[in-house]
Amino acid sequence: MNAASTSEPAPFSTVAIVGVGLIGGSIAAALKKRKLCRSVIGVGRSAARLQAAQSAGLIDVGETDLAAVAKSAELIIFCTPVDRIVDGVREAAAHCRPGTLITDAGSIKVAICRELETGLPDGVCFIGSHPLAGSEKNGFEHADADLFEGRVCVVTNGQSGKRKAESGGYYSTPNPLPLTPHSSHQRLTAFWQSLGMTVITTAPDEHDRLLAVTSHVPHVVAPALASLLTEESLPFAASGFRDTTRIAGSDPALWSAILLDNAEHILTGLEAFSESLREFREALVTGDAARLQNLLQTAKRNRESLD
Amino acid sequence: MNAASTSEPAPFSTVAIVGVGLIGGSIAAALKKRKLCRSVIGVGRSAARLQAAQSAGLIDVGETDLAAVAKSAELIIFCTPVDRIVDGVREAAAHCRPGTLITDAGSIKVAICRELETGLPDGVCFIGSHPLAGSEKNGFEHADADLFEGRVCVVTNGQSGKRKAESGGYYSTPNPLPLTPHSSHQRLTAFWQSLGMTVITTAPDEHDRLLAVTSHVPHVVAPALASLLTEESLPFAASGFRDTTRIAGSDPALWSAILLDNAEHILTGLEAFSESLREFREALVTGDAARLQNLLQTAKRNRESLD
Repeated sequence: MNAASTSEPAPFSTVAIVGVGLIGGSIAAALKKRKLCRSVIGVGRSAARLQAAQSAGLIDVGETDLAAVAKSAELIIFCTPVDRIVDGVREAAAHCRPGTLITDAGSIKVAICRELETGLPDGVCFIGSHPLAGSEKNGFEHADADLFEGRVCVVTNGQSGKRKAESGGYYSTPNPLPLTPHSSHQRLTAFWQSLGMTVITTAPDEHDRLLAVTSHVPHVVAPALASLLTEESLPFAASGFRDTTRIAGSDPALWSAILLDNAEHILTGLEAFSESLREFREALVTGDAARLQNLLQTAKRNRESLD
Repeated sequence: MNAASTSEPAPFSTVAIVGVGLIGGSIAAALKKRKLCRSVIGVGRSAARLQAAQSAGLIDVGETDLAAVAKSAELIIFCTPVDRIVDGVREAAAHCRPGTLITDAGSIKVAICRELETGLPDGVCFIGSHPLAGSEKNGFEHADADLFEGRVCVVTNGQSGKRKAESGGYYSTPNPLPLTPHSSHQRLTAFWQSLGMTVITTAPDEHDRLLAVTSHVPHVVAPALASLLTEESLPFAASGFRDTTRIAGSDPALWSAILLDNAEHILTGLEAFSESLREFREALVTGDAARLQNLLQTAKRNRESLD
């Protein structure tokens, strides 16, 4: 897939990236490195930061006026914190030319896609994305052109996957993509593929339910574990503790918003985690070596399925 | 410390390593790379494995007869699973020359040091060690001569640190080292330092209490989290999940023994962890963004203290 991606025609000529941080900066870096579009426009609130990103060679132009950028971009990618995506998309969409595609890189999808399902101007299409790549670090200074290479990107699609029946509101129509949804979806898929990613299409609720386990619960577990560290125990923390708590170094404001947005699924995941923990605790209390070894064996098998 | 270590006289001329796996193999590799002793003898149950370790250049000689090796080594390091260390040390000690120093690399210290506090022949000294370095991988094939560089090694000492008053039995005498304890302790400290390590001396119970939090609890938390992974969620696991669960790939038999040996401290640690988790859960249930952000901030600060 990767070999093919760079030789195919670039799906977009002008790409705007709103929020040039670690993810936005890495998308920009990947676009530049792979020569995938003619122009990468960085959009942000700080002209000085955009200037620095431009000097670092990540973007061609920096712009603080989202409306102006929206007029010219073919693809706009919101890489802002999740609680700023919906408003940003609405603001941009009001100025877009028909045919413009808007997406995001947020870690939650229901709260974003549901809001943007209606109310966008005709001809402007929003499809949610979540490239599963990142780091606990912040800022375009940590941008990495190869961050997405070989990783998975989730692209949302209301047509496939299950709908959340009880809410009734996630997808009022079977097709959430107002304009040429199939071709827009194909173009967006080709875009992420051109960065070296494998694209998986799911309904927003499927995304949030599955990511609750694989990303959001770990973003609670790791901080809860890191909280146990004291001045006394600090010198005794080695690579096991470091790895298990790495993501506890993530940005608190950013992750607070993500966790609260997907609280229901996360609480279900934490319930399952506590149940799993209880089994380990019982084996320890009863000194049941066979059971403990069995639990560890299952976990090891699961972990190895990732390698 | 590192620069000085290699220019100082090597503390031991003949070193025997019992259990040439990841840790034993890495000690051997470090000794060879740094030219710290005349001869490294690998001791194990499988002549074929020892032959392979010798062919890999890790050890000078392989030997399946522990008694024979004990007669000639100046330092014997047990790198076997923790539940085989005490018997191994007793067996070796029966054949050692006076002045031989025996240590180990086990992840628990009370159960080992308490047993070996009495009953060793006069002139043979056991001091517990725990080099805080490792990996979820097994076997000398993953040995790394630089594994210990810049890491901490805990060396036990009954004289310093607190004693477990209520048991009354961990150290019946204030000095657990029968022969020239001070010089033996110094030689062992110099040995680990010569591998590039920083040595911290603690009482065995202090070690087990502190390592419960920084190593053993994570070795329960990571497997409990890895257990949540299903075939459906597998494609959605990215680097956050991978890092948080890396140590769930550790050897189940090895870790089952460690966890059971230190169960009391670990259960206390898991209690504190569950309490920490409960706070996160409450903030999620009540939708309390300020509290959640506060909890994440504390965790981040703790995690950053490790960097």
